[in-house]
Amino acid sequence: MQIDVFSTVGEVRSEDLTQKTVIVIDVLRATSTIVSALANGSVAIHPMETVGQARAFAMEDTLLGGERFCKKIQGFDLGNSPLEYSPSVVAERRIVFTTTNGTRAIHKSLRGETILAGSFLNGNACANKALQLKKDVVIVCAGTKDHFALEDGLCAGYIIQRIRENAAQVTNVGDLGVAMYQAYLNVHGHLAETLLQCESGKRLSRIGYQDDVTYCSQVDLYTNVPVLRGHNPLELQND
Amino acid sequence: MQIDVFSTVGEVRSEDLTQKTVIVIDVLRATSTIVSALANGSVAIHPMETVGQARAFAMEDTLLGGERFCKKIQGFDLGNSPLEYSPSVVAERRIVFTTTNGTRAIHKSLRGETILAGSFLNGNACANKALQLKKDVVIVCAGTKDHFALEDGLCAGYIIQRIRENAAQVTNVGDLGVAMYQAYLNVHGHLAETLLQCESGKRLSRIGYQDDVTYCSQVDLYTNVPVLRGHNPLELQND
Repeated sequence: MQIDVFSTVGEVRSEDLTQKTVIVIDVLRATSTIVSALANGSVAIHPMETVGQARAFAMEDTLLGGERFCKKIQGFDLGNSPLEYSPSVVAERRIVFTTTNGTRAIHKSLRGETILAGSFLNGNACANKALQLKKDVVIVCAGTKDHFALEDGLCAGYIIQRIRENAAQVTNVGDLGVAMYQAYLNVHGHLAETLLQCESGKRLSRIGYQDDVTYCSQVDLYTNVPVLRGHNPLELQND
Repeated sequence: MQIDVFSTVGEVRSEDLTQKTVIVIDVLRATSTIVSALANGSVAIHPMETVGQARAFAMEDTLLGGERFCKKIQGFDLGNSPLEYSPSVVAERRIVFTTTNGTRAIHKSLRGETILAGSFLNGNACANKALQLKKDVVIVCAGTKDHFALEDGLCAGYIIQRIRENAAQVTNVGDLGVAMYQAYLNVHGHLAETLLQCESGKRLSRIGYQDDVTYCSQVDLYTNVPVLRGHNPLELQND
């Protein structure tokens, strides 16, 4: 099994994804929020690239969630804080969801054979699902506006560690994956502090979302794996 | 002082480099070879982007060195193995030099205020030179054909570690730099083994250059820092 990591969405070409299992990671905060919402009883998340598409698709019984500039979008029900997506809010609900980097990364990954949403919150479950699928794995770090984001890279490193530890077969990891794996091993004892000090963590803390950063640095809080299904609209549901 | 790392040449835009100290890294093998040649008495290295330019510029008293597909170019005096650039071969000589990734990375870095060639062989000296220059630092990992190369990232991590340890002022390191720094810390006890297992290391070993990989993984063997000077032709000389 080959495992490769892309440091930003911009780097990914469709041909890199064909017949692969793609794990999209946006730790701060889109995929952490998606994992939490589905863990808390939401029946489906519809990822949309633009605010206009999200508004157009929203219906009476759906919740509208997401962010621009890290803040809740005007008229939306929810922002991009995973803490907002509690069972009392999201249980049994469909959520139309758009964020700056995360939902874009999902849309750029459509050529993959199976597309999973990964985060620290469900890293081990994601690794096990990828192993079950028995395909080569591409991990797409969403990043921040075409720049690498440390939290996504470290999460890629964690998922690689879990795949390697649980794999029966030999895994071959590309150079960027090895770097992320080694970096993760060196910080895993103080993950929350590391995330609070990275660029996105500092930005979110400055505008009042420090608790989100701490929450998103929890490893394996959940065992659900959001899998992308359907077309028009796309939907993420628990596997 | 701000320190940023670019994972490949392709990512770098000229405006990222203006007024910065740029450290170009191609551990396997261009910058390791440049550092070694100048440490061994070569008076200047002229980096050329193409084989044609190198041939056109070569004169009777210059050596022609470099590679394509990791091998010595037909009609050239020397390949890209640092072990070829011994004192008896290069002392007092000018070398016209072209490689697939390293010399291209140097040419893409011309907008920097000062351009240095870095490697594990001179990492500490490079860090100290960057500190003396008192400018923000951009580390350009040459990579391999627009893909990240682990050995370059780890060397960036090492240079960041040396800058941080020797800096009187506070240093702020971008996310990719932090990842490389953490990865370096986790492998620094077994650097040669790590380089032999990375993609370039395996490729070079397969075609008989395993000794080059081991040689290039030596930390601070030299104290010289190649600095880019001149125009038409460019030349790298010891600081």
